[in-house]
Amino acid sequence: MKKLINDPATVVDESVEGFGWAHADLVTVHRDPLYVVRADAPVEGKVGLVSGGGSGHEPLHAGFVGPGMLDAAVPGAMFTSPTPDSIAPATLAASSGRGVLHIVKNYTGDVLNFETAAELADAEGVEVRTVIVNDDVAVQDSLYTAGRRGVAGTVAVEKIAGAAADRGDDLASVASIAERVNANVRSMGVALSACIVPHAGNPSFDLTDDEIEIGIGIHGEPGRRRIPMASADEITEMLTTPVLDDLGLGGGEQVLLFVNGMGGTPLSELYVVYRKARHLVEARGAMVARSLVGNYVTSLEMQGASVTVLRLDAELMALWDAPVHTAALRW
Amino acid sequence: MKKLINDPATVVDESVEGFGWAHADLVTVHRDPLYVVRADAPVEGKVGLVSGGGSGHEPLHAGFVGPGMLDAAVPGAMFTSPTPDSIAPATLAASSGRGVLHIVKNYTGDVLNFETAAELADAEGVEVRTVIVNDDVAVQDSLYTAGRRGVAGTVAVEKIAGAAADRGDDLASVASIAERVNANVRSMGVALSACIVPHAGNPSFDLTDDEIEIGIGIHGEPGRRRIPMASADEITEMLTTPVLDDLGLGGGEQVLLFVNGMGGTPLSELYVVYRKARHLVEARGAMVARSLVGNYVTSLEMQGASVTVLRLDAELMALWDAPVHTAALRW
Repeated sequence: MKKLINDPATVVDESVEGFGWAHADLVTVHRDPLYVVRADAPVEGKVGLVSGGGSGHEPLHAGFVGPGMLDAAVPGAMFTSPTPDSIAPATLAASSGRGVLHIVKNYTGDVLNFETAAELADAEGVEVRTVIVNDDVAVQDSLYTAGRRGVAGTVAVEKIAGAAADRGDDLASVASIAERVNANVRSMGVALSACIVPHAGNPSFDLTDDEIEIGIGIHGEPGRRRIPMASADEITEMLTTPVLDDLGLGGGEQVLLFVNGMGGTPLSELYVVYRKARHLVEARGAMVARSLVGNYVTSLEMQGASVTVLRLDAELMALWDAPVHTAALRW
Repeated sequence: MKKLINDPATVVDESVEGFGWAHADLVTVHRDPLYVVRADAPVEGKVGLVSGGGSGHEPLHAGFVGPGMLDAAVPGAMFTSPTPDSIAPATLAASSGRGVLHIVKNYTGDVLNFETAAELADAEGVEVRTVIVNDDVAVQDSLYTAGRRGVAGTVAVEKIAGAAADRGDDLASVASIAERVNANVRSMGVALSACIVPHAGNPSFDLTDDEIEIGIGIHGEPGRRRIPMASADEITEMLTTPVLDDLGLGGGEQVLLFVNGMGGTPLSELYVVYRKARHLVEARGAMVARSLVGNYVTSLEMQGASVTVLRLDAELMALWDAPVHTAALRW
């Protein structure tokens, strides 16, 4: 295993410490328990937004803490849910009295731990609502999940809910907007290679030199099928068609098209995928109104990509366009 | 070779086409010859900035086209310099009559081709000045270079010269600012793995499972030495100490600290490197005033990182902070 780390036992702490120093204008890192919170938290008069999950998917979630998006992010160990004793304090730190929304990717550990944390926060007088993100159309139930997994669509939920909180929406409204994004976003991914979790030291699964996995999860969970290596256009079609079908995308609709890198694939290749995915969206008579291309929800150094499509209405588009200032997303 | 491409012969065209569609608000892609230019070029009353080089280093350079940075970028084939017949038209497209600055990484092919293009543009009445970026302290002379190579410091040159052009500086002043950045910036990189150039189909060099290359170039050119795998802190020290020594960094100075990923290394590891590099800068009594961490000057899917330090004065800091709106850098 060759990695730029010192020790599997300290990599998350050291990485988050470095992150906090690099972005001290935006965030404060709380140690023991570990969480990342807006430097100006709690923000008066605003619903707080908290997300989190296993580390190894950076920039998700800490890279999305800042004005217009999250108030706090809770990193667990690599590919391991954070525990309630870190989620609950992060929730309190994000609370200014108007309640807190938990944005949770649908993995059983995360769902349970955020639920317990919500109860702890409630006992402290902080009202918590939860939205579960489950945008991955690849499989129903998976290695760590009952139901569909939450993957790159989480970025859209966090961005748009963040904008709704920023404009002053109350907790029920922010939760409702987040649910609307989740209901209108679908994703599917492919792996060309596995990644190595530091404390494991070995690839999380095996792929031969001529094999790829369609419908991969962001922890290397099994997807739909393994197939021989194919062209970018063929692979992109295998990802995009199920996404568009599941979404029931029709002519005249407008979408956000988001091509996400799994961490180890060159940016140039992500734009090749984007090009074909855009063809496929347009072939249905829909229009790509907004685009995002890059490594946002990763699996360490996994090579691969995912295609995410979000159906936009005028309100969701305006909230997507609203200003955001975080380490990983800014406009 | 597993890559998200259709054909090594078309990957650059398809990638740039996708890039153009994804960022149509910012750029226009000109086909045959291939270059990327600001959608609103030429910008009246402003010195034009043009850069370019072999593809495979994305987001460099096309990702830096937009207000506050480049006016045009010219992508060559993978790891291959663009030719004068594409650089010259890009130069004309970027020209509004106040002259054009070529920002060229120091590789012999790029230097010669940009020089010829400058002569062609001059014949069309466009005054061109050139700054050669050579920030890599690892080696003197290399596989494709006489003298030091130009690597991640190019981002600082393009950003800061772009801000100088934006505030209305004339060609000589913009060139002078760019030279000042180059004189005050140093970089050094490490590879944990090689990358595969699509048309080659094989790794550009061989590293064993326990071996890394200190001082690697961004095309996999040999560095200073191969050593057994070491800890992130040890490796970071091997990169940062030569950078700080060469820069002659002293106590009380302020710097931009930039940790750049080579493309295949997880973001979490880049922050581990940043953390140690920051310790080392501060141990000299200098202050990290600005930070940048991410994949900006890559080598396809190479695993590794580089450390760049730019000595800042008040003017360079203000120009770094000036607004920028490109696909890859925005504030």
